Amino acid sequence: MAIALIIPDRKLDDLQLRLQHALPDTRIEIWPHLSEPDAITFAVLWKQPAHVVAALPNLTALQSFGAGVDGILADDTLPTLPLARIVDPALTAAMLQYLSGIESYYRLRLDRFARQQQQQRWQPKSPRRLTTCCVLGLGELGTAAAVHFQQLGYQVTGWARTAKNVPHVQCYAGEDELPAALANADIVICLLPLTPTTDNLINAKVFAMMKPGVIFVNVARGAIVDDAALLAALDSGQVQAACLDVFRQEPLPSEHRFWSHPAIFITPHISAVTQVATVVAQIAENYRRSQQGLPLYNQVDLVRGY
Amino acid sequence: MAIALIIPDRKLDDLQLRLQHALPDTRIEIWPHLSEPDAITFAVLWKQPAHVVAALPNLTALQSFGAGVDGILADDTLPTLPLARIVDPALTAAMLQYLSGIESYYRLRLDRFARQQQQQRWQPKSPRRLTTCCVLGLGELGTAAAVHFQQLGYQVTGWARTAKNVPHVQCYAGEDELPAALANADIVICLLPLTPTTDNLINAKVFAMMKPGVIFVNVARGAIVDDAALLAALDSGQVQAACLDVFRQEPLPSEHRFWSHPAIFITPHISAVTQVATVVAQIAENYRRSQQGLPLYNQVDLVRGY
Ligand SMILES: NC(=O)c1ccc[n+]([C@@H]2O[C@H](COP(=O)([O-])OP(=O)(O)OC[C@H]3O[C@@H](n4cnc5c(N)ncnc54)[C@H](OP(=O)(O)O)[C@@H]3O)[C@@H](O)[C@H]2O)c1
Ligand SMILES: NC(=O)c1ccc[n+]([C@@H]2O[C@H](COP(=O)([O-])OP(=O)(O)OC[C@H]3O[C@@H](n4cnc5c(N)ncnc54)[C@H](OP(=O)(O)O)[C@@H]3O)[C@@H](O)[C@H]2O)c1
Repeated sequence: MAIALIIPDRKLDDLQLRLQHALPDTRIEIWPHLSEPDAITFAVLWKQPAHVVAALPNLTALQSFGAGVDGILADDTLPTLPLARIVDPALTAAMLQYLSGIESYYRLRLDRFARQQQQQRWQPKSPRRLTTCCVLGLGELGTAAAVHFQQLGYQVTGWARTAKNVPHVQCYAGEDELPAALANADIVICLLPLTPTTDNLINAKVFAMMKPGVIFVNVARGAIVDDAALLAALDSGQVQAACLDVFRQEPLPSEHRFWSHPAIFITPHISAVTQVATVVAQIAENYRRSQQGLPLYNQVDLVRGY
Repeated sequence: MAIALIIPDRKLDDLQLRLQHALPDTRIEIWPHLSEPDAITFAVLWKQPAHVVAALPNLTALQSFGAGVDGILADDTLPTLPLARIVDPALTAAMLQYLSGIESYYRLRLDRFARQQQQQRWQPKSPRRLTTCCVLGLGELGTAAAVHFQQLGYQVTGWARTAKNVPHVQCYAGEDELPAALANADIVICLLPLTPTTDNLINAKVFAMMKPGVIFVNVARGAIVDDAALLAALDSGQVQAACLDVFRQEPLPSEHRFWSHPAIFITPHISAVTQVATVVAQIAENYRRSQQGLPLYNQVDLVRGY
């Protein structure tokens, strides 16, 4: 019995070492150097190439190395096996710190002052009055974000697939209620998972539901947003500014219009990055559970895709 | 008995109206339209031109419209009269919000990502590990900032002219202890008043006392910093980045090197701006006290200059 780490383009020594420490009797191997593919019963995945997982005949369970699983399910050849994802307070804390920083950035108008600096323009202006916020997605991260903004003093709406009850947050559910969730928000934060249903969900029609002059923040997945619709909404002023941490294609291609749009602020997918130290224990625990035939912690629904 | 508002280049209708409301029996006049200069017994000042105050023979007290008085004392012709300044929880709160936003900005490396966006460069990097902070000046604003950063989790040192006792803040006093106050700080925040003693205080020698790679924030007054020394410290890397809200000359002249320096972030003196609504009561109260021969609230020491 062995574990395969199938995470291209990432140094995995630290993860291997710490997992080995947590599971001293288990062999931990790093793809593509698998000494005995038949011995692999558990795999830790992130954006794995197609066919790699399918080639391991004795897998019993899969573990995503991140909170999202869209990059894993994108593999058409993936065998149907229990799949778990990361849920980690440290990851949630990082996301809240990012969102707090972005909130301050726009409230203090640092976007505007940065542009003015490039033009040697001195034009004082008092902070933006941002008082309402809508969070799309009310899972681990979305709920935490909604509560956080409520505590910052925002009037918060939230939107999910199913009805929710979050203290002091006005919750809406399903496509029919999306306009009501969005209508009043000065800031809209996307924390939906990328699934066949949310792909391109935030399109021209949805931008038109938002409050004119809204600030849009995408920290979920790039493909949830229709790029051209966002650019059009920014150019018309319907969306005042957008902060994007995630993109349809990453790294964002150098010719993409997002890079140079004056109303877009780009961060390179850094808002909440999985830290090996804080997630090793749950990965080891899921390995143990898989070997004992127990259900995994934080298992995703393969049909829903999250 | 009348009050003169001597604040060039600012719409004063709101201040006049609200002061009038607080002091219904007193005439409130806006310089340069003073109907009867001899009737003026109290003046509210901000960067007044020289000779204007001196030409009012029956003044009994002066009130700064802001927290600092350097722009008022710069007037060589100013008569020696009791001078009060603004101390306002709303102003302090605004300063803390600004500093929080700037702290997040640097912690999340938004400065770096903004530069990378201009170059279409995708280069993820985890947050800066900022853990130590030094606040120069431990008055109304400096003490609040020191406590705030301590609550954010920072190890905080503070520096003032005289010894202080601030919970969980290591306080230093006087020139001799400046090196110790600065030595360990990842972030240095200047909240000193501008006086003959602090003019150019932060010079090459002082930048050299700081931790290599420090982030320097000036929200006090531009002239406390030696501009050329700051530029040299940035170019050598001794200072990693500087956030400047205040400048020796404001508006910052368009040819100044600060505008285009890649490691400088400029905001146009917006960190904590006096709001008429929150300061009218203390101005009215100081007027009443001056007419009754009572000491003013928040009176400054004219010899020390703050
Ligand atoms: N930028 C980064 O660094 C970063 C880091 C971590 C995660 N992420 C992204 O953030 C996403 C959210 O993470 P999470 O842990 O909060 O996910 P989660 O716990 O699975 O929550 C997903 C939420 O989205 C809602 N949802 C799903 N499909 C929907 C639909 N079609 N319409 C309306 N609501 C829908 C779900 O509604 P129900 O509860 O009603 O099912 C749920 O509330 C992840 O999938 C990942 O892509 C990004
Ligand atoms: N950017 C903005 O929007 C904005 C807004 C408001 C204020 N400000 C600036 O912030 C400054 C500070 O405001 P504040 O209300 O905190 O002032 P404050 O209450 O008068 O405090 C000044 C502090 O500086 C210390 N200090 C003065 N001279 C010193 C010296 N030579 N060496 C060491 N320490 C010295 C004082 O030490 P002791 O206590 O020992 O005397 C005191 O702790 C104002 O003067 C103003 O210029 C800027």
